[in-house]
Amino acid sequence: MPPVLSAQDYIDGVLRGDRVMLARAITLIESDAPKHQALADEVIQGLLPYTGKSVRVGITGVPGGGKSTFIEAFGCHLCDLGKKVAVLAIDPSSSISRGSILGDKTRMEELTRRENAFIRPSPSGCALGGVARKTRESILICEAFGFDVVLVETVGVGQSETTVRSMVDFFLVITIAGAGDELQGIKKGIMELADSLLVTKADGDNRSRALATRAELEQVLHFITPVSPKWRPRALACSSLEGVGIDEVWKLICEFVAKGRVTGLIDERRREQSLEWLQWLLEQELWRRFTQNPNIVETWAETQQAVLAGTLSPTAAARRLISINTQPQV
Amino acid sequence: MPPVLSAQDYIDGVLRGDRVMLARAITLIESDAPKHQALADEVIQGLLPYTGKSVRVGITGVPGGGKSTFIEAFGCHLCDLGKKVAVLAIDPSSSISRGSILGDKTRMEELTRRENAFIRPSPSGCALGGVARKTRESILICEAFGFDVVLVETVGVGQSETTVRSMVDFFLVITIAGAGDELQGIKKGIMELADSLLVTKADGDNRSRALATRAELEQVLHFITPVSPKWRPRALACSSLEGVGIDEVWKLICEFVAKGRVTGLIDERRREQSLEWLQWLLEQELWRRFTQNPNIVETWAETQQAVLAGTLSPTAAARRLISINTQPQV
Repeated sequence: MPPVLSAQDYIDGVLRGDRVMLARAITLIESDAPKHQALADEVIQGLLPYTGKSVRVGITGVPGGGKSTFIEAFGCHLCDLGKKVAVLAIDPSSSISRGSILGDKTRMEELTRRENAFIRPSPSGCALGGVARKTRESILICEAFGFDVVLVETVGVGQSETTVRSMVDFFLVITIAGAGDELQGIKKGIMELADSLLVTKADGDNRSRALATRAELEQVLHFITPVSPKWRPRALACSSLEGVGIDEVWKLICEFVAKGRVTGLIDERRREQSLEWLQWLLEQELWRRFTQNPNIVETWAETQQAVLAGTLSPTAAARRLISINTQPQV
Repeated sequence: MPPVLSAQDYIDGVLRGDRVMLARAITLIESDAPKHQALADEVIQGLLPYTGKSVRVGITGVPGGGKSTFIEAFGCHLCDLGKKVAVLAIDPSSSISRGSILGDKTRMEELTRRENAFIRPSPSGCALGGVARKTRESILICEAFGFDVVLVETVGVGQSETTVRSMVDFFLVITIAGAGDELQGIKKGIMELADSLLVTKADGDNRSRALATRAELEQVLHFITPVSPKWRPRALACSSLEGVGIDEVWKLICEFVAKGRVTGLIDERRREQSLEWLQWLLEQELWRRFTQNPNIVETWAETQQAVLAGTLSPTAAARRLISINTQPQV
C-alpha cells in the first residue's frame, strides 16, 4: 500500500512532471470517498495557478466513425510535432458497457507507447455529472503537469457531448461518408456544437465518397448558426490509415487558437464555462437535497402521478412540494 | 371596477363560453400579485378536467418570415373549416420591444374580426419563466373554453422556442427563400425542434426560389434526427398572400394528429411535458430561494470573481456556497 500523501506531495509531484504522481492525483480526484474530496479540493486549488495553458479539444463522433483510430493518428502526429498530448475519456456508462477507451486493448497501441502521450480511461461512476466533474479536474491536473494538448473523447451516450462541449475550447465532430440516412447518425443538436466536422475514412475506394460528404456537410453548415459568431465551423476530411489530412485538423485548430487569441474567444468561452459549471454544480446539489428531503420523498411519486393523470396542475404541484420542503435539509 | 369574482365564477364563465370571462380568467392567471395566485390555481384546478382536447401548435420563424401574415391566413382557413382558433403569443420582451402580437395594430386584422377566433397578446413580465407559466395556463383555459386549435406564437427571443416547443403538440418553423447565408437566420438548434419547416412567401417572382428552398430543406432534414422517431419532419411551402399551400399545413397537422393517436405520440409528449414542467418549476424556485438567501447574496459576487480569476475552482466554490446556504430560507 502506497504511503499516505499530503496535498503538497501531489502538487509537487505533478509540477515536477512525475508520471506516477500524475496518475495518482487523477485517481485521488476520481475517488468518491468523502475523505478524499477535501484533499482533492486542496490539490486542485494548489495546481490552479499552473493550469489553463493547453489547447482543450473535445472529440465526438458517430458509432463506427473510427474515432479511436483518428485519435491515435492525431495524437501521434502531435507527438511528432513535439507536443505533449493527454487523452481523457468521458463515458458515463463505461463501467457497464464495452467500448470504453481502454476496454479494447488493441486501441491506441502506438499512441500508448509514445513518451509524450498520456491516455486515461473514463472514470467510473455512472452519473454523467460525476464523470464530468472528474474529467474537468483531470484536465486541470494534465495542464499543470505540462501537456500542450488535452483531447477529451466522448462516446456520445446521453448528454455527454454537451458536457464535453462545456469543458473544451474546440469541439470536433467525426462522421463518415454515407447516404443522407446514414448521416442521421449525428445526434440531434450535435452538429450545432461543432467547431469543425471531420469526415474520416477518406481512403481507398471510399475516398471520393468521403470528399463528397465533406462538401455536402460544408453546405449543411451554412444552415446552422455557429456556436460563436467569432468562428465559422469548417468541414474537413481525413484518412487515419493513410495519414492524409491529419495535419489539416491540427492546422485548423491552430488557426482557431490564433484567431481566438485576437478575438478573445477562447478566454470568453473559458470564463463562461467556469460560471456555467459553478451554477450547474449548485443546481445539482440543491436538487439532490430537495429530492432527499423526507417530506418530498414521501409525496413525490403520488404528486407526479396526479400531474400525469391531469388531476393536479404542475404549478399547483410545485407550490405544494415547495411548501413542504421545510425540514432541516439532509 | 368589476365585482370580485370567485373561482367558481371564472370556471362557470369559461365553461359556458363567455368571452368576457375568458379574457378575465386569463388576466387573472397573468397577474403577478400573490393574492391572485391562489385564486388562479383554484380556477386552473377546476378547469383541468375540461382541458386537453385542442391541437396545440407552436409557431416560430426567422425575422421577416411573415409569421403574422401566415398566422392570419392559417387562422382564417381554420375558421372557414368551422374550427375555433385561439392565438397566444410568447414574447418575453414584449413590454419593451416592438413587434409584440398587437403592438402593430394592422396585424391579423381579418382574423381579429372572425367570430371563432381569439387573439391574446403576450403577457407582460420580462422573465421567460413567468411568461411561459402564464401561456401554459392560458392554453388550458382556452381548451376548457372550447377552442379546437391553439396557436402559440414565439418571437424567437432567447430560449423562447424551446419553451414553446415544451408546451405544444406540433412545432412549426417558418423560414423564407434565400441563399445559404440568409437561412442562417434559423437559430441554432431550432430546426431540430421542428415537426415541420414551412417556407413562406412562395408567391409572385419569389415562388420558384421558395420551392427550391423547400426542396433544399427537405434534404437538410435528412441530416437531422427528428424530435421523435414516431414523426418524420417535413418541409412545406406556402403563400399567405395568395392563399396557396395553407391547407397543406393543416393537412399535415391532421396527419400528425391521426398518426399520433395511433402511436400514442401526442399523449406521450404531453406526459413528458407535464413532468418536465413540474421539475422546471421546482428547480426555478429552489434556485430563487438559494440566490435570495442573505448568506449567498453576501458572498455571491466575490465567489464568482474568484472563479473567473482562476483563484478558486468551481467545485470548491460550490462546496463553500452550499455550506453557508443554511439560514432559514426566504
